[in-house]
This record gives sequence, structure tokens and C-alpha cells, in this order.
Amino acid sequence: MNHPTTTDPLSELRERMGALADLRNVAQLLDWDQQTMMPPRGATARAETAATVQRISHEMFVSDDTGRLLEAAESALNGARFESDDAALVRVGRRRWEKARRVPSRLAADLARAASIGQQAWIVARSQSDFASFIPYLERNFELVRRYIDCFDDLDCAYDAVLDDFDPGVRTADVARLFDELKSELLALIDAVSEHGDRVDDAFLHGHFPIDRQRRLVAWLLERMGFDRRGWRIDDAVHPFAAGFGNHDVRITTRWDEHFLPTSLYGAMHECGHGLYEEGVAEALQRSPLGHPESLSLHESQSRLWENMVGRGRPFSGVLAPQIAESFNGPVAHVDGERFYRAVNRVTPSLIRVEADEVTYGLHIVIRFELEQELLEGRLAVRDLPEAWNARYAEYLGVDVPDDADGVLQDVHWASGLIGYFPTYALGNLIAGQLFERVHADLPDLDAQLAAGELHELREWLREKVHRHGSKFSSAELLAQVVDGPIAVGPFIDYLKGKLSQVYDLELG
Amino acid sequence: MNHPTTTDPLSELRERMGALADLRNVAQLLDWDQQTMMPPRGATARAETAATVQRISHEMFVSDDTGRLLEAAESALNGARFESDDAALVRVGRRRWEKARRVPSRLAADLARAASIGQQAWIVARSQSDFASFIPYLERNFELVRRYIDCFDDLDCAYDAVLDDFDPGVRTADVARLFDELKSELLALIDAVSEHGDRVDDAFLHGHFPIDRQRRLVAWLLERMGFDRRGWRIDDAVHPFAAGFGNHDVRITTRWDEHFLPTSLYGAMHECGHGLYEEGVAEALQRSPLGHPESLSLHESQSRLWENMVGRGRPFSGVLAPQIAESFNGPVAHVDGERFYRAVNRVTPSLIRVEADEVTYGLHIVIRFELEQELLEGRLAVRDLPEAWNARYAEYLGVDVPDDADGVLQDVHWASGLIGYFPTYALGNLIAGQLFERVHADLPDLDAQLAAGELHELREWLREKVHRHGSKFSSAELLAQVVDGPIAVGPFIDYLKGKLSQVYDLELG
Repeated sequence: MNHPTTTDPLSELRERMGALADLRNVAQLLDWDQQTMMPPRGATARAETAATVQRISHEMFVSDDTGRLLEAAESALNGARFESDDAALVRVGRRRWEKARRVPSRLAADLARAASIGQQAWIVARSQSDFASFIPYLERNFELVRRYIDCFDDLDCAYDAVLDDFDPGVRTADVARLFDELKSELLALIDAVSEHGDRVDDAFLHGHFPIDRQRRLVAWLLERMGFDRRGWRIDDAVHPFAAGFGNHDVRITTRWDEHFLPTSLYGAMHECGHGLYEEGVAEALQRSPLGHPESLSLHESQSRLWENMVGRGRPFSGVLAPQIAESFNGPVAHVDGERFYRAVNRVTPSLIRVEADEVTYGLHIVIRFELEQELLEGRLAVRDLPEAWNARYAEYLGVDVPDDADGVLQDVHWASGLIGYFPTYALGNLIAGQLFERVHADLPDLDAQLAAGELHELREWLREKVHRHGSKFSSAELLAQVVDGPIAVGPFIDYLKGKLSQVYDLELG
Repeated sequence: MNHPTTTDPLSELRERMGALADLRNVAQLLDWDQQTMMPPRGATARAETAATVQRISHEMFVSDDTGRLLEAAESALNGARFESDDAALVRVGRRRWEKARRVPSRLAADLARAASIGQQAWIVARSQSDFASFIPYLERNFELVRRYIDCFDDLDCAYDAVLDDFDPGVRTADVARLFDELKSELLALIDAVSEHGDRVDDAFLHGHFPIDRQRRLVAWLLERMGFDRRGWRIDDAVHPFAAGFGNHDVRITTRWDEHFLPTSLYGAMHECGHGLYEEGVAEALQRSPLGHPESLSLHESQSRLWENMVGRGRPFSGVLAPQIAESFNGPVAHVDGERFYRAVNRVTPSLIRVEADEVTYGLHIVIRFELEQELLEGRLAVRDLPEAWNARYAEYLGVDVPDDADGVLQDVHWASGLIGYFPTYALGNLIAGQLFERVHADLPDLDAQLAAGELHELREWLREKVHRHGSKFSSAELLAQVVDGPIAVGPFIDYLKGKLSQVYDLELG
């Protein structure tokens, strides 16, 4: 393929944005490789490489040339519809350009370098549960993010700057309001089921599950979801994640716990949900900044929907349970769909976010959201973080944190500079609730399909309504189209009540 | 680490060259990933990404800014010695800059894109032995390389332009002269042993060698050589290669043949030899264009020395054989060092270059060297290549090529644009002969060490004499220092005569 020189400003913009999308793929590959393949001593060189790519990419993007191209392209749109690819390219490009050009390229490079270094330091600190060794890295990351926030002088609050990077247009005040509502609903639900824990037996989820058999089970599961070796791969990672290098090169990761089955099973479904989003972006948006879904709330809505609403749903549990029974010995070999469904939905306040049930999960997020703001606003020092973390876990979830590896060091995000990311998980749950309600209305026999292990129509519905648009629309714009309104707490809570009524034999209407 | 702005021209040059070294790592990672990890459908996006990185890197390098920096840095050298890192940075930087700026960045990008696409097409073509499907890709690669050569108007011959990319300063006429001498020596050796084939039994090298046991054996072997999981990794590849992302992130690859043991064994030693070179470059040269060894003749001298002079040598065969005997069942389980030594050095004209014995190996290279020149000069058309290939194999090696997979499609090089690379393998053999002669003089008990499985002193000698210098010296400059002269055929032939005298019980003095 050649890219002939042209004077058509839209083609020129597409070409420049295409090169920037290539550099984004490079940054992503550097990170994917670091997390899955790189030998540990490669970390120093890798951090410099990541910083250089970020600096060059940032310089290229924020240049006046890009500004002129955006302006010329905007004029050349000739009233193209809001929904058109070109109008979206100009609109999204201009929004990102105006934000990015406030930030010095050197700071952008410093952030990338610190993220790479921090991630490596986190692996060591977590494996030794040694928060003290991690303090300088975390302080560096928060210091850089504060300098990043200082680039913006028109914010309602500091946190808005970073939150907007993970879900453009969303404001801290909106999240705080939604989380207030969510928190009180969740606490009520926890309260309602807390005395009925003996109604659900989940002991069989703990046991001995040989990793090679887990791998086969997960391969079977992912294939049902649409995983295809010609365009996907799956690897191991300390903290699972998904990455997309365009719609034909999707990479997911998972981890394995020999003694607890849900870790790999639902972890893989979660990441595959992300992967389907990357894969589902329209061909026409490839090699463009629109080709990679931008709103992480939407992204998490996809992973959480597949992980929980499908994977931990009653219909599909009837498909999963016999496969699991066939794969392993021990008590789990005698479990049917209904017992399995109940077990994987037992509400138990616990230590680890990614293994939390759907109800307590939201509280893990609220804790992180609160702590991040306190850290950014200087109300909390990094060295005091473990104490604050443990106190908040005792207060919100009633659990004692035995060590930092299972506490403040459990997540990779802060280590790799992803500050402001966590709220999108809970927002993703809310959006998933809205989408799941809507898809049931559109596909009345969806539950029958899921019970038969047929996931195709659900995937195509999500592709049509969400995936194919890539980054053309913000989460608010997309939700207005698909569910006729903004992010809301109601459908998710209704969904949880329905599920808990079944799991605990309660009336929670 | 910060990179403060400075007006010291040497620091500025170092910083710019450091960023370019980072981009080289990126290009290398894109390629490593494509050859080892990438799902096949990712190929189209990968080719665009590789092209963009190459274009940006080339533009940055060939800019007038770089020229001014080189000039200012040269003045600032203040008579620094030829051997100093700074003098080498300026000297090597200027040489590369003057060559690269003749080439349009768009052509550099087109070459990178075509290399990526061609490599993928080759995998498919080779697996189906379908040369016809591969013709358009190969034609494209040769057309682009011809356009590349056209950028230079001061060449003695077209081939000089590409040869110089793989071994700076080496000229086609020199290679032709060396190869003429080499060819007649090798043909004489083949002639001398051809009637005595029955003196060497290598049947036990064919059999059943379970891959998992091969993996364990290779792991043991590589560990002896210095492979260390903290800074190395090994993966499978269709065509084995090595890559270095600085001295602390070395990646080698190999392939496995369940029915022929030497494929993985000597393939892994070969790539580990490359890896040791990458690892051995001085810390002070990291993140610099000097940090990655540039002369592929020197590079191949390292891989071939470890593969053949150590791995297929008499002393180390006594270490290898018992390990192999312990690892497998069948006839190989009863083989001692001496029988093993003879078997792996049996001279047998054959089809596949990378599995050829050391004597016939050179002829595989001569064939490619001749064909490349004919293709570049338009004396041979790509579509006629299989016929020419097969005729040359019949003439030089007396073997019939049964299909293109085992013929013209066996090597990845042309597919990925590496035209002019092959001679460096044979030059590497010659240099290895010179180095092996010299190290025996410097370390009189080397054979005793090798017989005891001690590879440390040899590795350190190579590190001291060759590896640590990275790209500071051309192959000619380095050889002048280490063996007091230019590349020569004699020591390699003497080495072969010594070996064949033992293997065949002949007088070849």
C-alpha cells in the first residue's frame, strides 16, 4: 500500500492520524511485551524506549501542523453528519489535540518512563509484599500526575483531568453522585443477604484444579465466545489485561490459581469481553485514532457483561457446570448448573477486587476512587496509604487486610501510572446493567440462547450497538443512542436484586 | 532518568542517537513479535506500523539537524582517540548519516512495509511449497532494493550498496575473491572425503527425539553457555533468529525436529552465540547506535564459532554425548563423544543450508551470493529463480531439489528484504576460523576447558576482544586489532583439514 502525497486536507489528516495510531500500537506492544514476555533485566532499556515513543508521538500530535490540518479538515467536512467517520475523526482529533497540547512532550515522556519503571517495581514489591520498596515509585507517579494536572487551569477539580483521559466528558462530580447512590444500594443489598450466607455453598470452588485442565477449559470457553487463533492470542500475566493492535490482532491474558477455579475462568471471560470490543471495531476505522475504543467505562461494560451477566448468569451456568464437572475431580465434578450459579454469586466481602462478587465489587472501587482523590489533593501521603487502605477495607467491607500484597499492592494500575482509571470499572458495571436490560428487550429469547450456549446473537448485538463505533462517540453519546439516556444506577441494581433473589431465595423486589 | 536540555554538542548528539537507538529497538520488537507471537491476521496492520516507525526514524536521522549535530560534535571531540566512545559515535554516526540521507524516507518505509508483508507471505508459501504465490512479493522486494541501490551513484557495482549495509566497508570484489579461494578449497575437501563416507556413521542422529526432552537438553546446554532467564528468553520460530534490545534483554529462537536432533541443538547454540554478542556489548555503549553489533560477518563469526567450533568440536562433543545419551532412548543412548563428534561432522552435500556440514555450507552461500547478484543486475528474473536455484544445487552440490520448500523457499531472508546478507555467513565462518586460531594461542588449555564443559574463559575472551566494542569498529578494523590482518581463508581451511583428518582418519595436511 502506498500513501500518496495529497492536498486533500481530510486525506492528509487521515494519514497523520494513521501514523499516530501506528505509534499507539507500538506503545501498546511495548507494554504488552513488558507484561508478558520481557525478561526482567530488560526493564531499564524498555522504560527509555517507551519514553522515546511517547515523546515522538506527542510532539507529532501536538504540533501546529496537526492544528492546521484539523482546521482545514473541519472546513472540508462540508456539513458531514455528526455520525460520519470523517466528522468523528475531526471532532475526536480536535478534542484530544486541545487537551494534549497543554502538556509538554517531555512530561508525556516522563509519564511513560515512570509507568514502565513503576510496573516492574510493582511486580517485585507485590511478590514480596514490600510496600516500603515501592514508595519512591508510587510517589514519582503521583508527582508526575500532579504535574500533568497542573497543565490544565480550567478544572472544577484536579481529578477531572485524569478521569477525562479514561472516559472523555465524564466529570468527578457525576461519578461521586452515581457512586453515592450505588454505595447505599450495595450496602443495603449486602445487609439483606448477610444473614443468609448459609443458604449458598461455594466450598467446591476451592480445591485442586490442575492448570493444564484449566487451560483446556478456558480454551473451550473462549472459543464459544469467538476467540480465533488466526486473530487472537492468550498469555499469562501477573495482572491480566487485554490489548488490541487493530481488529485482527487481539491479545488477552489471564492468570491461574490451582486452588480456586473462578480466577482463570471469569478472568479469561472478562478479558475476552475486552477483546471482542477491540475486534468488533469497524474495518473503516482501522489505522485511525477511532479504531481503538477510548471510553474505558464502555470497555469495562463489555468485560463485566461477559464475565458476570453471561458467565455468572443462570442460563449460561447450566452450560458451564457440566464442562467443569467433566474437567476436574473432587466435589466440583458433581455440581449442576443451579448449584454452580449460586456458588459463583455468593456475596462475601473480601480482599481482592478482581475476585469479588458483583455486589461488594463496587465498594472496592469506591475505596480506590476516594483514596486517589485524597492522594492527588495532598490530603493523604503515599507512605500513609497502606494504613488508609486497610482502615477503609475494615470500614466498608469489614475485612482485615493481612498484608500489602493482598491489600494496597494487589492492583497494577497506580504502579503503571493509571490514576483515575478505577471508577470506570464501576461505571462499566452500571452501563453493562443498562445494556443487558436493553438487549433482553431486543432479543426476547436471549436467555434461552445463553442456556443453549449460543453466544453469537449477543455478540453481534453488542458489535452492532457498541463495538463497531470504536471511539466515534463518547460514552454519553453512545448511551444516548443505545439506551436513550445517561449512565444510571437503576438497571444494574435491578439486575442484582433479581439475581440475589434467586441465589438466596429472597424477595428483594 | 531525565535528559536535560544541553548545549554540549556531544551530549546532544548522544541524546538524539539514543532516541534513534530506541526506535531501532522498536523496529526489532515489531519484527521479533511478528516472527514469534503475532497472530497471522495481524500482518496487515503490523506492516503499516513497521513502515511508520521506519519512516519516522529515517526522517529524524537524515535531517539537517542531525548533520549539524554531527559536525558540531566532531569539532568538540578535541582529538579524542579513534578508540574512544565519542569518536566512534561521531565516526559511525556520520558514515550512516551520509548513506541514509541519499535514501528518501518514503522508500525506507516502503522497504520496511514490504519486508513485513513478504515475511508473512513466505510462511504461507513455504508451508505449501508454493513459489508461484510468492513471486509478486519477491519481485516487490527486489524492485525496492533496486530502487534503494539507485540512490547511490558512486558504486563499483550494484551489490556493494546492500553488502555494505550488512558489513560496512566490505566490497563485492573482496567477497568474490575470498569466495573463489574458499570454493576451490572446499571442493577439494569434499573431493578428498567423498570416497570415505562409509568411515563415519551418523545414522543415530536420525530417530525419535521427543520435543520436551529436546527442550530440557537445550536448556541445559544454553545455561552452560551463559543463558540467564533474568536477561534472556528463548522461543520457537519458523526460521530461527536472535534479537537484542540492549545487553539485558536478549531473545533467541529455535525450531525443533522430532526426528533429527542437530536441528534444535546446533540451531540453539548458533543463536545463543549471537545472543552472547548482544549481551556482551559494554554498558557504556547502551542506548546508542554503537550498542548493537553492526557487522553481520562478525555476528555470524560468533554464532558459527559456538555452533561449530565449540558445539561440533571434539572436546565439547565429549560433554554433549553423555547428556544426549541420558536424554533419549534408541541408538543415540549408546553413543560416546568420539562417535558423536564424527557423526556431526560427516560431510554430506545436502539441501538445507542451516543443517549443512561446515564444508558444504560454504557452497550454499556461494550459490545465494551468485543468484542475488544476477537478480539485482536483471540477469535473472524472479520467476526463473527456482530453475536457476535447482540447477546450481545440482552443479555445486550434486543434489536434486525435490520441491521449493526445501529449495528456494527454505530461507526467510529474501522474503524479509534481507538481500546481500548471505555472504556474511561464509565471511563469519572465515572470521571464526581466525578467532579460534587466536584464542587457542591466547588460552593454551582451551581444549581441556572445553572438554570439561567449561565455556567461561572462551566467552570472556570473545567478550573482551569482540563483544564489548559493539559497533565501534568495522569488521576490518576489529580484525586488524585481534588477528593482525584482514579476513582470510587460510585459518578456516586449516581448521577444517584438522577436523576432517580426525573424522575420516585421513592425512589432509
